[in-house]
Amino acid sequence: MVEEKPNCKVILANNIAKRLLEEVHDGLKKIDRKPLLVGFLSSQDPAARVYAEWTGKTANENGFAFELRELDREVLEDALIDANNDDKVDGIIVYYPIFGNRQDQYLQQIVSIDKDVEGLSHQYIFNMYQNIRFLDDANTKKSILPCTPLAVIKILEYLQIYNSILPYGNRLHGRTITVINRSEVVGRPLAALLANDGACVYSVDINDVQTFTRGEGLRKRRHEVDEKPGWTIKDCLPISDVVISGVPGDTYKVPLEHMRAGAVCINFSSERNFTPEVKEKASIYVPAIGKVTIVVLLRNLLRMVQNKINAAEDAAQKAADEKAS
Amino acid sequence: MVEEKPNCKVILANNIAKRLLEEVHDGLKKIDRKPLLVGFLSSQDPAARVYAEWTGKTANENGFAFELRELDREVLEDALIDANNDDKVDGIIVYYPIFGNRQDQYLQQIVSIDKDVEGLSHQYIFNMYQNIRFLDDANTKKSILPCTPLAVIKILEYLQIYNSILPYGNRLHGRTITVINRSEVVGRPLAALLANDGACVYSVDINDVQTFTRGEGLRKRRHEVDEKPGWTIKDCLPISDVVISGVPGDTYKVPLEHMRAGAVCINFSSERNFTPEVKEKASIYVPAIGKVTIVVLLRNLLRMVQNKINAAEDAAQKAADEKAS
Repeated sequence: MVEEKPNCKVILANNIAKRLLEEVHDGLKKIDRKPLLVGFLSSQDPAARVYAEWTGKTANENGFAFELRELDREVLEDALIDANNDDKVDGIIVYYPIFGNRQDQYLQQIVSIDKDVEGLSHQYIFNMYQNIRFLDDANTKKSILPCTPLAVIKILEYLQIYNSILPYGNRLHGRTITVINRSEVVGRPLAALLANDGACVYSVDINDVQTFTRGEGLRKRRHEVDEKPGWTIKDCLPISDVVISGVPGDTYKVPLEHMRAGAVCINFSSERNFTPEVKEKASIYVPAIGKVTIVVLLRNLLRMVQNKINAAEDAAQKAADEKAS
Repeated sequence: MVEEKPNCKVILANNIAKRLLEEVHDGLKKIDRKPLLVGFLSSQDPAARVYAEWTGKTANENGFAFELRELDREVLEDALIDANNDDKVDGIIVYYPIFGNRQDQYLQQIVSIDKDVEGLSHQYIFNMYQNIRFLDDANTKKSILPCTPLAVIKILEYLQIYNSILPYGNRLHGRTITVINRSEVVGRPLAALLANDGACVYSVDINDVQTFTRGEGLRKRRHEVDEKPGWTIKDCLPISDVVISGVPGDTYKVPLEHMRAGAVCINFSSERNFTPEVKEKASIYVPAIGKVTIVVLLRNLLRMVQNKINAAEDAAQKAADEKAS
């Protein structure tokens, strides 16, 4: 039988970003002003500047106002507090690394929860790990998710790995996903998010393999983590439908020889973790996700502005009711 | 952590049938008459009569005319030839078993290919195995698929196991599916259809396990079959996303202890091949498919009527063109 070219659908982040932008544009139409995002650049890392410029460009092109404030890192904390208190500022993004140590995590917690478009506030991170999806008891105000893990989720939704036949919150039930990298910034929160949505996740790093799952029948309300002693990536790849890799640097490559034919592959590293041969074996390959991450940031900003408007309307209504009674 | 009830979505054939019926109703609106389906009952099997009555009821309720002809089996062949030649008859269905031997297969080939709503004509079966999707070179006239395997395909589409992000013809790429039963009537054609659409299929019967696949990267135009010496269902279930079982009789039960948590389970046996515990472990469970099969039959009938109308219009156009020139 004649062999044809391999069938792998390569999907560029740009196409996924476009669809998400349509949602954002629809939301913006219902607001009578341009939301203002303020970026704080105190990092010496050239990549941080590139990211800042890219945020500004995407924001401006899509109906948001963007202001970049370049500051000495020693005055950043006060500047953030000022921005927190400034009603004109809708969202705040800080470009890391700044001190490159735990002081950066301290600074992350300075940003007001109402303006933290990156979703790095402890309350958001706590809700994410605990699978608490709303900020209020009435379930009207959705919690914010950190941008890069959320970008991966949005990509998986676009790729229909999330099955909308299943109830919201369980739409990855039956999916087996390997996540390579367990950093606090992306890998671990991503593994938790996927498991909270019902997937069986193998979280792989240089030291070991862990499973994140809600158990058989998804009986648990949120994921639990189990060690897989003796397991390596070679055990995970043959049984995974989806392989998501984000190892920094240009030396790491996913060992494709162990991967299941027809797997869905997503790279969130700034380098390519998959060799070009991935197209010989995968059903879908997403080589980079950066453009989706920026749109997710704008989407978070929009949600915060909507929350603010809703809260103001509720307060006005309450005041009117009190006056009337 | 408190354990909750298991999350398994049980989907009844009725709901899937409803959506397919909407399609059929839309198609019927574009036709100025009631298509006539004629059923031939020469079987002594009480199940055949039940099926005949059920076809009639569904046809009548949904805008089709149905006529049941009960005949001695010795005159059936001539009666089928008469119906083939009768322009008023749009579709023919014969209720088997009749002789219960190879004579039944002979009778299946008597029904005209233009009226064979069950899709049992050799040309249709050949096209199905060969992954030839159209009857004509211009790819305008779709080939007919046998009803029960097609019903399973329609169910998998409904369940979004087919991924519409992937190109038509490859939408099961990356799916691993176990089909239990390899009968010529359903099990083997179903395994072939699923593999032709891109799945890796483990076809299991009492004797052995075979794989049906188009190879890594779906490079082959149609599926190939390989033996898996030494394999049993215990090797297939832990790596399968979807488990489809159609073993006749009430003794066979799928060994759920080997099944992957979160699998999608579909039963096409008239008995239950899954014990109730399937709901503890599966993400989706479809307990029966009969109602979908009947709608697929009506869908095939509608397609044949559409083909006939198109052919008549083409012939009229051609005649007009010749007259004009």
